[in-house]
Amino acid sequence: MDRISFADMRCTLGRSLEVIGDWWTPLILRDLFIGVSRFDDLVTDLGISRNLLARRLKWLVDSGVVDKRAYSQRPLRHDYVLTRAGEELVPVLLALSAWGDRWVRPREGVPMRFVHRTCGGDLHARVTCGHCGGAVEAADVLALPGPGNAELPGTAVVARRLKANAAT
Amino acid sequence: MDRISFADMRCTLGRSLEVIGDWWTPLILRDLFIGVSRFDDLVTDLGISRNLLARRLKWLVDSGVVDKRAYSQRPLRHDYVLTRAGEELVPVLLALSAWGDRWVRPREGVPMRFVHRTCGGDLHARVTCGHCGGAVEAADVLALPGPGNAELPGTAVVARRLKANAAT
Repeated sequence: MDRISFADMRCTLGRSLEVIGDWWTPLILRDLFIGVSRFDDLVTDLGISRNLLARRLKWLVDSGVVDKRAYSQRPLRHDYVLTRAGEELVPVLLALSAWGDRWVRPREGVPMRFVHRTCGGDLHARVTCGHCGGAVEAADVLALPGPGNAELPGTAVVARRLKANAAT
Repeated sequence: MDRISFADMRCTLGRSLEVIGDWWTPLILRDLFIGVSRFDDLVTDLGISRNLLARRLKWLVDSGVVDKRAYSQRPLRHDYVLTRAGEELVPVLLALSAWGDRWVRPREGVPMRFVHRTCGGDLHARVTCGHCGGAVEAADVLALPGPGNAELPGTAVVARRLKANAAT
């Protein structure tokens, strides 16, 4: 990776972004979610170089987000599937897609739509509060320091701001 | 940007990632959300170079996610605030942070916690279905082609897969 590491940041968002690695990753996860799971199909679908895809997949396997699975023994062939951690990233990607459908929709119309099998309705992913179930709006959220809060690079000013929030 | 453009992909996720631009952006949006809004404070907080931050902020303003606002006329001084589109990205970042708190939490504990002012409870951001309100799990979501579905780079295989899903 040709950028600085976010892995040591005292910020869960920074650490999550470190796992995701680069912009290809959400698209690789999208493909695995949709069932495009073989190396050659991923290359064809994304137009990504074989080298870069191999590195990305290795990183995702090492990070515990993707599993490499043998789907044939003779000849030995592998494909890639989401782990539980990877599956739990899918709703986040769906929430980002819902944002995109609203704010950066292509002229041609939405390229993909989703049905929520549980209810049979169109899925429009929303972020809600696990406590009350209500919609989450930025203005309604107060950020406070957690036990790992620290004035380190990546949170040098934010850490103080959180403490000030806690004091009010 | 030193990577290929996702802007023309027939994939809302790809286009959303194009707006976000690089990994600094979610952290810049986090800071603006928390109220760290001045250029020098952002530099100090993130440990980002002034050049790179200036480029990222210009991109975000051009993309309609961030506004540049004069907070003083004499001397003229600006800070940065989220637009409506930017505010609507915050819940997505909170959902990603909730994933990170679960899967890549620092040893020292969660660095930041959130209170949902609307209900007064701890916010644990969840992605739910706008139709039924139920939780969204990857296994319960069926992806189908939308009007903009096309076999283009970025969706060359996925597009066919979506059509197959629609046929079943």
